[in-house]
Amino acid sequence: MKALRKMRPQRGAQLESVPIPTPGPIEVLVRVRAASICGTDLHIYGWDRWSASRIHPPMTFGHEFCGHVEKVGSEVTSVKPGDFVSAEMHVNCGHCRPCRMGQPHVCQNVKIIGIDADGCFAEYVVIPIRNIWKIDPAIPEHYAAILDPLGNAVHTVLAGPIAGQTVLVTGCGPIGLMSIAVAKACGSSTVFATETNEARRAMAKKMGADLALNPATEDAVKRILSETSGTGVDALLEMSGNPTAIRQGFQALRAGGRASLLGIPTENVPLDLVNDVIFKGATVQGIYGRRMYETWVEMTALLKAGRLNLEPLFGQRAPLEKFENAFSLLQNGLAGKILLYPNGIPR
Amino acid sequence: MKALRKMRPQRGAQLESVPIPTPGPIEVLVRVRAASICGTDLHIYGWDRWSASRIHPPMTFGHEFCGHVEKVGSEVTSVKPGDFVSAEMHVNCGHCRPCRMGQPHVCQNVKIIGIDADGCFAEYVVIPIRNIWKIDPAIPEHYAAILDPLGNAVHTVLAGPIAGQTVLVTGCGPIGLMSIAVAKACGSSTVFATETNEARRAMAKKMGADLALNPATEDAVKRILSETSGTGVDALLEMSGNPTAIRQGFQALRAGGRASLLGIPTENVPLDLVNDVIFKGATVQGIYGRRMYETWVEMTALLKAGRLNLEPLFGQRAPLEKFENAFSLLQNGLAGKILLYPNGIPR
Amino acid sequence: MKALRKMRPQRGAQLESVPIPTPGPIEVLVRVRAASICGTDLHIYGWDRWSASRIHPPMTFGHEFCGHVEKVGSEVTSVKPGDFVSAEMHVNCGHCRPCRMGQPHVCQNVKIIGIDADGCFAEYVVIPIRNIWKIDPAIPEHYAAILDPLGNAVHTVLAGPIAGQTVLVTGCGPIGLMSIAVAKACGSSTVFATETNEARRAMAKKMGADLALNPATEDAVKRILSETSGTGVDALLEMSGNPTAIRQGFQALRAGGRASLLGIPTENVPLDLVNDVIFKGATVQGIYGRRMYETWVEMTALLKAGRLNLEPLFGQRAPLEKFENAFSLLQNGLAGKILLYPNGIPR
Amino acid sequence: MKALRKMRPQRGAQLESVPIPTPGPIEVLVRVRAASICGTDLHIYGWDRWSASRIHPPMTFGHEFCGHVEKVGSEVTSVKPGDFVSAEMHVNCGHCRPCRMGQPHVCQNVKIIGIDADGCFAEYVVIPIRNIWKIDPAIPEHYAAILDPLGNAVHTVLAGPIAGQTVLVTGCGPIGLMSIAVAKACGSSTVFATETNEARRAMAKKMGADLALNPATEDAVKRILSETSGTGVDALLEMSGNPTAIRQGFQALRAGGRASLLGIPTENVPLDLVNDVIFKGATVQGIYGRRMYETWVEMTALLKAGRLNLEPLFGQRAPLEKFENAFSLLQNGLAGKILLYPNGIPR
Repeated sequence: MKALRKMRPQRGAQLESVPIPTPGPIEVLVRVRAASICGTDLHIYGWDRWSASRIHPPMTFGHEFCGHVEKVGSEVTSVKPGDFVSAEMHVNCGHCRPCRMGQPHVCQNVKIIGIDADGCFAEYVVIPIRNIWKIDPAIPEHYAAILDPLGNAVHTVLAGPIAGQTVLVTGCGPIGLMSIAVAKACGSSTVFATETNEARRAMAKKMGADLALNPATEDAVKRILSETSGTGVDALLEMSGNPTAIRQGFQALRAGGRASLLGIPTENVPLDLVNDVIFKGATVQGIYGRRMYETWVEMTALLKAGRLNLEPLFGQRAPLEKFENAFSLLQNGLAGKILLYPNGIPR
Repeated sequence: MKALRKMRPQRGAQLESVPIPTPGPIEVLVRVRAASICGTDLHIYGWDRWSASRIHPPMTFGHEFCGHVEKVGSEVTSVKPGDFVSAEMHVNCGHCRPCRMGQPHVCQNVKIIGIDADGCFAEYVVIPIRNIWKIDPAIPEHYAAILDPLGNAVHTVLAGPIAGQTVLVTGCGPIGLMSIAVAKACGSSTVFATETNEARRAMAKKMGADLALNPATEDAVKRILSETSGTGVDALLEMSGNPTAIRQGFQALRAGGRASLLGIPTENVPLDLVNDVIFKGATVQGIYGRRMYETWVEMTALLKAGRLNLEPLFGQRAPLEKFENAFSLLQNGLAGKILLYPNGIPR
Repeated sequence: MKALRKMRPQRGAQLESVPIPTPGPIEVLVRVRAASICGTDLHIYGWDRWSASRIHPPMTFGHEFCGHVEKVGSEVTSVKPGDFVSAEMHVNCGHCRPCRMGQPHVCQNVKIIGIDADGCFAEYVVIPIRNIWKIDPAIPEHYAAILDPLGNAVHTVLAGPIAGQTVLVTGCGPIGLMSIAVAKACGSSTVFATETNEARRAMAKKMGADLALNPATEDAVKRILSETSGTGVDALLEMSGNPTAIRQGFQALRAGGRASLLGIPTENVPLDLVNDVIFKGATVQGIYGRRMYETWVEMTALLKAGRLNLEPLFGQRAPLEKFENAFSLLQNGLAGKILLYPNGIPR
Repeated sequence: MKALRKMRPQRGAQLESVPIPTPGPIEVLVRVRAASICGTDLHIYGWDRWSASRIHPPMTFGHEFCGHVEKVGSEVTSVKPGDFVSAEMHVNCGHCRPCRMGQPHVCQNVKIIGIDADGCFAEYVVIPIRNIWKIDPAIPEHYAAILDPLGNAVHTVLAGPIAGQTVLVTGCGPIGLMSIAVAKACGSSTVFATETNEARRAMAKKMGADLALNPATEDAVKRILSETSGTGVDALLEMSGNPTAIRQGFQALRAGGRASLLGIPTENVPLDLVNDVIFKGATVQGIYGRRMYETWVEMTALLKAGRLNLEPLFGQRAPLEKFENAFSLLQNGLAGKILLYPNGIPR
């Protein structure tokens, strides 16, 4: 089969021909319909410091997808060939303390398919049965291909109270934008967004933000405090990883509020713990992956009920072979979610 | 009446004679039995940068005490003269968003008696009726004088799950030591403590710590990870405000754990948000004051049931007039909780 | 001033002329703009067994209203004459254990204005300052008059997870209908409603219910189980007080779901605790009044953000003098929320 | 191997010789060290209505045990032969909504080993690897044999706040008695117990109850209200399944309290929902099995830290062959937890 593989510890990737893998007793072989490119895939493609420390070539990457079950292992009873599925790509060990405490999403021994094992930029991918997620027929195919990042957004938004809450989303990349839509669908009141890129601010408004601020040209903290009678927002959803945005986010957070951090800073962030966390009695949450599988249930329900319009987020569709153009579009800025089709684009 | 007052913006304090204050319609006048000296009082006495920015002399300080109701305002019906009481000294406004959201302990307009208004280092102090806490007769008088800092400890310990949890207390001042006793009384399993001062480490063991480590001479993080099979602790109770201790605390925290921060750093703290918070899916809580009044109910119940032995924490007792000696003992290190008696030491 | 009063322990009420009351030091006098009639007022008017045991004539009833501050007590600083306000009519004691545990809505010593003290079916009403709720200018006057029952609905809906949850509302009186709108605004997925009255079922659909079932003519439990793949609903919001509806609601609840009970049965209800609660691991919540004041904050935010269309719920408007017609309309069935105007209907 | 089997749909059981079972790819074969007899086993032995509807002879029963791993399936990596283990006997499906929502203990498709599949009253038992619980070496063997019922107690106690809470345990069978010890270990204040059997009341005191009342001879509700200043208890732990005890428990519960129901009534229970649940704003929880695997982690931690003295609960030890005597002792009343040894009693 065709597979997009990292062959050597350097920039780039290659389309290779490899054998179709065989599922073990508790695994499933899935024929990939559509795969979506994540920011993490750009890092792997570009081969940055993180990739060099984590990725072991040769390997197939890609971890956002949907497809049809092709074959099931001997112990598998809950899906059958033909079922339309996606998957949670974080494979948890099941026996570490976080796994045993109902927190498998932060398993100490997690293996990520597409990072630690062969991923979905290929005609077929093998997934443990417990990680398979059957797609409700009401959910469109292109949405089914981006449940992984949508799950990040849903996990972040629903990590605390949201109905009737004022919200600040710092950073309007794809997950930030999805978070705006999810927060609105779940009853948040005013949603503020900060983002320096103009096109993304426009997109933020389209997704439902009440006010999209440019922190490079305006004192966003002052404006948000003023719009909230000096109180600040109930919830900060940090999606940028940018130290300045993080600090501003905390300054705009009300006493007793919650800050849910998903964006990945590349260095240590100096925090004013006294004024921004301790005296405020704030709750700060690290958000990683998706709750397994609360987030998947919630996300499915929101999609099925037609509460999320994600159409503006989608960019172009391409056969897997055209991967170079796709990666280069994404590296040059705002290309939306690009879908790759390893088995050809359906007409 | 006698009152220990900050008269000028400089180091020191003076015993003055001032009129006995008159309670308003919803206030209570309390005759102070015993008052305890807090670390904050040392800052006010020593006149550091924080004091200079917050305290407006002349004023009477002191905010940990117990005493008997002397007189009640016209609208007060829930206590009567003679009742033995202590008080929550954080007076909340009742109408800001945190107050209305069940978080009065982080009121945006809080006034603290003994900091923003005349405190309890005096023969009498005036307290709003809503802040009065009647003392259960089963609670000894010297314990009643330190409910304010004990409440800090109880608030921190009970800010998340504690039964069956492994705990790290970083910093063994009075509140850290109380936290150890409270955690043990509430079913925690192994309690680790870190503290550079040897006498305080010995005290930590006395209060119930299973292992008291000196981070200056031992790799405390490595040791704690090793003692927990590489997992780390379920709960970090940060009581030092020391940036190194804070970072070590986070490193020793397990994935999915909670970090409750009470210690006050004097500068920004550079945090490795990615590894210590986000990828760990940790929950970080700023802890300020005491829940009003959940903490008071819980603390009273623990004391009444005889579950906390705080005797080792008490230092000497002195009449209010001997304040200089008391402050100098405390500034020179480990003197335990010193009680001042404005109306004479009971025999 | 004019006041609608229960003068004797029997059916009916009378318009009387009484002195304008004087607010105490921590009270506020409010000039009533609009008052709304609650089901409880019908009980008082009709003088049922409950009324006979709780109401002590002569007294002025009515507890849903909005108006303008006329005069404030000597200690009141947070509102001023002219402010547009409503009020939480449950006056809590502030010192019982529920009050101290952050649960003032179930205060053991609660006094309800309009039941235990003179209410708002009058030109003026006196309210303790802590119970006054300032109305955000974005909220229309007629909505401001029904915050009390809307708060019941918001309290019920937000007593557990709602985003992405399937919901069953049993009973479509005014609060049941509001609950449907609130659940939808807060991201619920499918909302089922059961109600025997056809007009109310039509209203339920108008408020957002996906399926409104008549349990008198259809096996509602079977239908709901079938629509949820045999799982049942995530949340039951019980609004009827009807024993049969309650039992059906529990049968339609999924394992691990939550049942929030607001409707008031008039007799003991035989429950199949084993199958409907214990083996299901269900959580059952008694819902009373409104969280003080979390519910008020949430409700205000939802209204201000324009997320709730309650227009279909409103019936006619009448001057207070026309109370007899209003009560008789309501007793004869579906009249929506009728507003009474003690100071004349504004043009 | 020897196995105690229900051969026919009637009272009694027989010791049979059956083949040693073979573990599948994700299963483990365990050599049983000690097995404990549960109340459920008495029902199966006696063949009551519930047994007749659920049990399909011939089958081996028994579901409380500890033992050593004998053999592991091909996909099993987390345990190895010789490991000392117990097991969660509720085998969840992993894909129903409760399973996916973090509530596998109320899986809609649960199979219970010892009820729906061959259990542990045998020399060997087969367990899915995910259900295996490795025993910490600090935990004594006889405690390891009763983790199943101890888990019921821990699940019930920790289903809500417990530190500083007043508690009522209604019914002092083995799980009720364990609950008393667990509540005390986790910082509860006063623990009340009600029980008509005198020997069990004595045992309740031994386990830590502050007051053990006989509801047959004393007005237990009145006494508990009086001991709590008229407030009632914060938490009701219902362990009897007796309708009268359940109603009394609710009457003794404070407004805003929680009632955790584990005892199994044999008929519908008429509840005064208005006064005991709704107006009280109570939270009622059905408790079933053990949280998978939060309860196991917590229980292990409590045992390892030496916080639970369960010695008084143990009755006699017998080889499996002497089962008839053991069952008859238990049916005749208070025999404590009897341990059966299918592979001989260790000296």
